[in-house]
Amino acid sequence: MNASDASMSIRPVARVVSPYREKFGVPRQPGLVPAAQGYLEMLPEYAAVEAFEGIEGFSHLWVIFGFHLSDGQPRLRVRPPRLGGNEELGVFATRSPFRPNGLGLSVLRFQGLETAEGRLRVAVSGLDMVDGTPVYDIKPYVPYTDALPAARGGFAAEPPAAGLQVSFSQEAEAQLSGLGETAPGIRRLIEQSLALDPRPAYQRGDGRIYGTRLSAYDVRWRVEAGRVIVERLVCVE
Amino acid sequence: MNASDASMSIRPVARVVSPYREKFGVPRQPGLVPAAQGYLEMLPEYAAVEAFEGIEGFSHLWVIFGFHLSDGQPRLRVRPPRLGGNEELGVFATRSPFRPNGLGLSVLRFQGLETAEGRLRVAVSGLDMVDGTPVYDIKPYVPYTDALPAARGGFAAEPPAAGLQVSFSQEAEAQLSGLGETAPGIRRLIEQSLALDPRPAYQRGDGRIYGTRLSAYDVRWRVEAGRVIVERLVCVE
Repeated sequence: MNASDASMSIRPVARVVSPYREKFGVPRQPGLVPAAQGYLEMLPEYAAVEAFEGIEGFSHLWVIFGFHLSDGQPRLRVRPPRLGGNEELGVFATRSPFRPNGLGLSVLRFQGLETAEGRLRVAVSGLDMVDGTPVYDIKPYVPYTDALPAARGGFAAEPPAAGLQVSFSQEAEAQLSGLGETAPGIRRLIEQSLALDPRPAYQRGDGRIYGTRLSAYDVRWRVEAGRVIVERLVCVE
Repeated sequence: MNASDASMSIRPVARVVSPYREKFGVPRQPGLVPAAQGYLEMLPEYAAVEAFEGIEGFSHLWVIFGFHLSDGQPRLRVRPPRLGGNEELGVFATRSPFRPNGLGLSVLRFQGLETAEGRLRVAVSGLDMVDGTPVYDIKPYVPYTDALPAARGGFAAEPPAAGLQVSFSQEAEAQLSGLGETAPGIRRLIEQSLALDPRPAYQRGDGRIYGTRLSAYDVRWRVEAGRVIVERLVCVE
């Protein structure tokens, strides 16, 4: 035992405000759903604009966060969804949430600082975190050191395959029309999120109805002949 | 107060074995000194090759680590060395070690897994961490999501200016000759590390003798007319 083997206590500096209200449907990496906009809402002791001076020169931010809903035990071997869920790899060769210390790392697009109701929020897009996720650090993305486009990406060398096509039922279209100004954002969020096919790998048959919480809606959808059909939106907030 | 505001305890999974034995002289970002080779020595409970299966397909790794020697209080405003040390920025707009939770993030080149004396080590290069640094997570670098070469890099948009030229005194040359096989590695480590000019921004006059611990040596050097001259190596281990 050595001093550097001792445990350390960390406390959130912010909390994620995200349209993803549950794990099901959250993109598996950041940036896949540009319409996934939200905030890093700073905790009171860090809600100070001066802690961000200079950030406006950066286009992207790193977020170190906690996989707070992954309450399973950390594992040494995991089954990445990318490999269909039936092949095991070492946890340190993946970005799996079931990892020692449960820390996640995502790069998000920085959309500006906002103050609302006395709270300081960092607006971001490309979210791949569930609402309420604790954030332990925010760092600027520094391309000269962080951007390695020639790096080899192992089993995840390529982005996920082009997504499923997403269409809306007449009922869903009518609901979107009724939403007015917010409708284009909700539509893109639904389209981009469901195109990634959130169905578990072991459950890819057609016809089953899924419900995915996106923003204030429980979005009901199914897959038919390789296409997502959004049946309706149920407002739940 | 909310569940996600609670503190969390994290424990190291590995410890860094680095040629940098003290803070002075450590590169300010990873990858600047390719000759800085070392290991992430896994703690016993993670010293399992199966926890790394699949990692051989990746060329680079993310390391989330603790700035364990930065015992100052975290600050909301810091003075990045990059700006000469006399301009303040918000801590979240920098990669400063003086940050809430004291977590660092570096991408390192993966050089293979090694087992030595019953210990599992992840060989890496491009180190920018001091020996003994606690590592809280190791993740593969996934270029499709992590590599954003078009990102805007704020005050650190460009790599540091081309380094200082480094030359060796006759005494230092004789010492390197005497080191035999290890000499080329030590020479490159010294050259690449000192070319970055580790002198503090407020102390850039010529002539002063500095000592920098690199691997087993206290390397004595000075700057004359904008060039680093390595005077001698003192073996201290």
